Amino acid sequence: MEAQTYTITFKVEGGKDLLVPVLPGESILEGAKKANLAIDAPCSGNGTCGKCRVKLLEGDVESKETRHIAPEEYSAGYRLACSSGVRSNLTVFVPASALAYQTHMKVTDLSTSREQGIFAALQEELRDMGLSADHGLELVTVQLPKPALDDAMADQERLLWALAEPLQSDPESIRMSLYALRSLPQLLRGSDFSCRCVVRREPDQRYTVLDIYPGRDSETPVLPGLAIDIGTTSVSILLVNLQTGEPLAVGSAGNGQIRYGADVISRIIESTRPGGLARLHKAVTEDCIVPLIKQIAQTAGLPPERIYRVVVAGNTTMTHLFLAVSPEHLRLEPYVPAFFANGTLRGAELGIGVHPDAEVEIAPSIGSYVGGDITAGAFSSMIFKKESLSLLIDLGTNGELVFGNGEFLMSCACSAGPAFEGGDISCGMRATDGAIEACSIDRDTMEPVFTIIGPSGQKPVGLCGSGLIDTIGELFRCGIINAKGRIVREGKRTPRDEWGIGSYILAFADQSESGRDIALTETDIDNFIRAKGAIFSAIRTMLTIVDFPVDAIEQVYVSGGIGSGINVEQAIRIGMFPNLSLEQYHYIGNSSLSGAYGMLCSRKAAGKVAEIARGMTYLELSSHPSYMDEFVAACFIPHTDSDLFSPQE
Amino acid sequence: MEAQTYTITFKVEGGKDLLVPVLPGESILEGAKKANLAIDAPCSGNGTCGKCRVKLLEGDVESKETRHIAPEEYSAGYRLACSSGVRSNLTVFVPASALAYQTHMKVTDLSTSREQGIFAALQEELRDMGLSADHGLELVTVQLPKPALDDAMADQERLLWALAEPLQSDPESIRMSLYALRSLPQLLRGSDFSCRCVVRREPDQRYTVLDIYPGRDSETPVLPGLAIDIGTTSVSILLVNLQTGEPLAVGSAGNGQIRYGADVISRIIESTRPGGLARLHKAVTEDCIVPLIKQIAQTAGLPPERIYRVVVAGNTTMTHLFLAVSPEHLRLEPYVPAFFANGTLRGAELGIGVHPDAEVEIAPSIGSYVGGDITAGAFSSMIFKKESLSLLIDLGTNGELVFGNGEFLMSCACSAGPAFEGGDISCGMRATDGAIEACSIDRDTMEPVFTIIGPSGQKPVGLCGSGLIDTIGELFRCGIINAKGRIVREGKRTPRDEWGIGSYILAFADQSESGRDIALTETDIDNFIRAKGAIFSAIRTMLTIVDFPVDAIEQVYVSGGIGSGINVEQAIRIGMFPNLSLEQYHYIGNSSLSGAYGMLCSRKAAGKVAEIARGMTYLELSSHPSYMDEFVAACFIPHTDSDLFSPQE
Repeated sequence: MEAQTYTITFKVEGGKDLLVPVLPGESILEGAKKANLAIDAPCSGNGTCGKCRVKLLEGDVESKETRHIAPEEYSAGYRLACSSGVRSNLTVFVPASALAYQTHMKVTDLSTSREQGIFAALQEELRDMGLSADHGLELVTVQLPKPALDDAMADQERLLWALAEPLQSDPESIRMSLYALRSLPQLLRGSDFSCRCVVRREPDQRYTVLDIYPGRDSETPVLPGLAIDIGTTSVSILLVNLQTGEPLAVGSAGNGQIRYGADVISRIIESTRPGGLARLHKAVTEDCIVPLIKQIAQTAGLPPERIYRVVVAGNTTMTHLFLAVSPEHLRLEPYVPAFFANGTLRGAELGIGVHPDAEVEIAPSIGSYVGGDITAGAFSSMIFKKESLSLLIDLGTNGELVFGNGEFLMSCACSAGPAFEGGDISCGMRATDGAIEACSIDRDTMEPVFTIIGPSGQKPVGLCGSGLIDTIGELFRCGIINAKGRIVREGKRTPRDEWGIGSYILAFADQSESGRDIALTETDIDNFIRAKGAIFSAIRTMLTIVDFPVDAIEQVYVSGGIGSGINVEQAIRIGMFPNLSLEQYHYIGNSSLSGAYGMLCSRKAAGKVAEIARGMTYLELSSHPSYMDEFVAACFIPHTDSDLFSPQE
Repeated sequence: MEAQTYTITFKVEGGKDLLVPVLPGESILEGAKKANLAIDAPCSGNGTCGKCRVKLLEGDVESKETRHIAPEEYSAGYRLACSSGVRSNLTVFVPASALAYQTHMKVTDLSTSREQGIFAALQEELRDMGLSADHGLELVTVQLPKPALDDAMADQERLLWALAEPLQSDPESIRMSLYALRSLPQLLRGSDFSCRCVVRREPDQRYTVLDIYPGRDSETPVLPGLAIDIGTTSVSILLVNLQTGEPLAVGSAGNGQIRYGADVISRIIESTRPGGLARLHKAVTEDCIVPLIKQIAQTAGLPPERIYRVVVAGNTTMTHLFLAVSPEHLRLEPYVPAFFANGTLRGAELGIGVHPDAEVEIAPSIGSYVGGDITAGAFSSMIFKKESLSLLIDLGTNGELVFGNGEFLMSCACSAGPAFEGGDISCGMRATDGAIEACSIDRDTMEPVFTIIGPSGQKPVGLCGSGLIDTIGELFRCGIINAKGRIVREGKRTPRDEWGIGSYILAFADQSESGRDIALTETDIDNFIRAKGAIFSAIRTMLTIVDFPVDAIEQVYVSGGIGSGINVEQAIRIGMFPNLSLEQYHYIGNSSLSGAYGMLCSRKAAGKVAEIARGMTYLELSSHPSYMDEFVAACFIPHTDSDLFSPQE
């Protein structure tokens, strides 16, 4: 006898209805996964994050009470999808706010963006290092002799002979991509046998004709390349004109894998379930990178299949999943990845819709928990060629640190959790439209003033990483929270703790985009303190291991896609960053993406990243006896040892 | 207002029902094409071949009378699909006999096949030339050190380091295919870190690990390769154990493109229609080669994606369509192909289901009408290294000739039409089960005795090329037909011209597989005479151009997949082949397939074929003034100049 099943009808805000059969007792979230509906669940369905709030329209569920649903919301039918077991056929409304990040794709033309500045500076650095325009691609214009009855050489061979002279090669050393061959007969006859060829110089000094365009009288084609940063929480891509190094457009989206958990460990566990690896691979490629590439190419007016070079950087788990290679052993002793570095791959192998013969390079990892995002980041920070002792702090779902200079480099990872990217925080979000990215609080009125990402008139949606650091710094500075992160209930109380339940309301329901209060709760602050404590204790432990005091650090590079950059003063105030002078800090944006950008513009830069990877030492913090003590001590604002953060002389 | 449409319901013998909307007046054949139902129509729907006989079960069509449908069949509902315009909703029965060839896929284990002999002989030749086992693949067994906390090198890098010693290479010169990487972590841990690697030596002395198998204690894996001959009418494939050169299985199927016409010209025209190129590409790959590869791999107990090397030979139109490159300009002055030769392609580029990194080589063409089938055939015939003046006659849909020896080679093409492969002949078929492959007729009784391909008890289905030559030779020898190919109506008449309508019934309805007479009509004989006349006149014209008499030919190699080999005596009797002694003739089977087999076993052999292609001269017969006269003179049995075929001294 088959088990009885119920049907859930999902009514998705701004989307189509979905029907899916479920077994009695399965959760609404499990039903959503079966329907391939990406309901946000960074806590992997433990009922702790509160992001999967849906509204029950019809039917009966078994649902625990939760602090994430207020009593009047509960009466209105709101439930957490993860904590609601199905007891009948259901009709469930899924508000846009419950949809996982990948639906929030954003692509921006870069003509006015502030990120342009970071890439321009890096391009300058590459030029200084003699690494610019070393991507191997060139445009060669040729005029072919026209075929005749007594000259019936095939089109392809005719072209290769014509290319031999400008390339100073022999025709046998030039091959033609099938992609180019397919358009060749038509194109030659439409352009009077004059054409422009996109030619790639191969490492063995042979050449590949990747593409052809009409000749002399036509517009000069762009040679586009793509840098991709695959983060655990979000994916960023950058479309670059390889001839000039100029970024054309930038895009980002939530990593489609988020529905399988917020951190790499949840993803690795999911990958070992039947079909899990294929699901995770599809979630980050087909459901995320492919549409993002389509969108960014469209923004720039280019067909995706004419993108000729791609560089991908990501942490070790992400690059494994991107290549559909099992990351299972990353978390099993002795923590061995399937690969550190790949040879150059081809577009057609990866199914991401770029040119089938595109060179695709993956930034190399050095271990299970220090990946290509860090080796690429170490490159773009330029630490590897500095004299001064420098520290790179990369704030992602995992926090990673690199310390060293031109002489040595060491790295470590710490589980900061997704707080800086909006995870684990009830009103947290990525640094995209509607995010509060900066905040100050008036000490007298205790009223906040904030800056919101997005067009003028944009209402606030939530807090991104930089806004969170600001807000908590300000709450502490104004005495609204104490060193333990608790709302101070004695003395003058903030009118923004409306219910007296230990929260600070940044925006009331009538001012917010969602029509719900945007508030930081003590749980949020707790989660944040653990995240910032993980960062600071990792810095202290790493320096202790190599026998440097914290004030030996001469320069600090802070990276991560957390918003407007970091208000370092606040970050020091709350004990997240070491107490150095502000001039020593440099915010360098998404260093994984800009490292990938460097590798994209220059094969030699890619070789440099490989060299960095080979030379970098990995420190395992958790095996160091003092790490746990350091962490506990850092879980205060600013620290149990407040001398560390007393004003400097 | 939308045009009115009717619906045809196709009831396919041995298949599923198909429904398709059609416009009034469209033919049943057009409806079948829309439904992607491959009804056989080698005449492209001109009503001349009679292969598209279907049975109308319900509905009304406008249908011309035709000699292909007898009056009592007409009353029973039989119609030609191509000549029946739809006038109402229809239900149409499609008998298996009307389905195009590709449904008749056949794969044979080669342990007892006679073809084995041809490949064994070629393997011997390769060995003599020092070309055997030069396919670049090898199996390397390695034992890896096991990872530990203090040795956390990634799996891939661990393997590459272990391979460096046996390959006498450095690890940086070895790369791993993504396909292999994906199975690596699981496989190593399941086999105690011992494994066997399939490694390919690349032309630049680097290595690629294509695949991995468990190590020492397991069965030695086979390294399979695939030779493919893409003919206009049929596709043949040969699965080979590359370690030994031994053929494992052979398969063939009708070229799925047949529904778009029997000859290359019809296919080229179809390719220029909207979507035509994609349809033709799909018809030969997805609908034909892919299932054939699946089937042959299954026969040998191997997964298709573990086929590591592929060589494809075909005429110029076929290789263009296989690569989805437009053949349009092959038939437009100045007759220029898009390409002669390709660099090595990769499995993933072609979507035929073999290993994504498999090396795929295409035998090079030398012109619009002399393709890779001929350059490969010239290799397998070994003409290119002979002292004696030799002639290769390849009997396909196009007849092609190569003449020369170790000093020079020239080639030409002649449109023989598809008669030798069963086209243009009412009872014609490919050399597969049920084909009459040899025939003799008793001069007194005028009764035939024939040999049928297939298992014992197989009833006859039709005539393949070799059976056709035999039958017509015997009809002439017995005086049943005259020099013009007409049934002799005076004197003693054959009881096999039952209706006195000018046909010879080889098998009566009650003896045949289909339950219909198998008969040769005067029209069939006419078509055949033009085919054989094209061959002989091409031989004469080519030799005249280079100033050799026909009897200068010392050896003749006859190839083509036309059945049991050719009864040369009959072929000379009817004036198809020159009147040389029988010992000078050698039947070498499908020389395109065996040439591809040679290239598969040896990269140097592939290089030799490229050399042959570069050195071969192409003669355009149609531009020679005497060719038309030669052809007319050859359209008799044996010839208007009967001295050419008088018994030799």
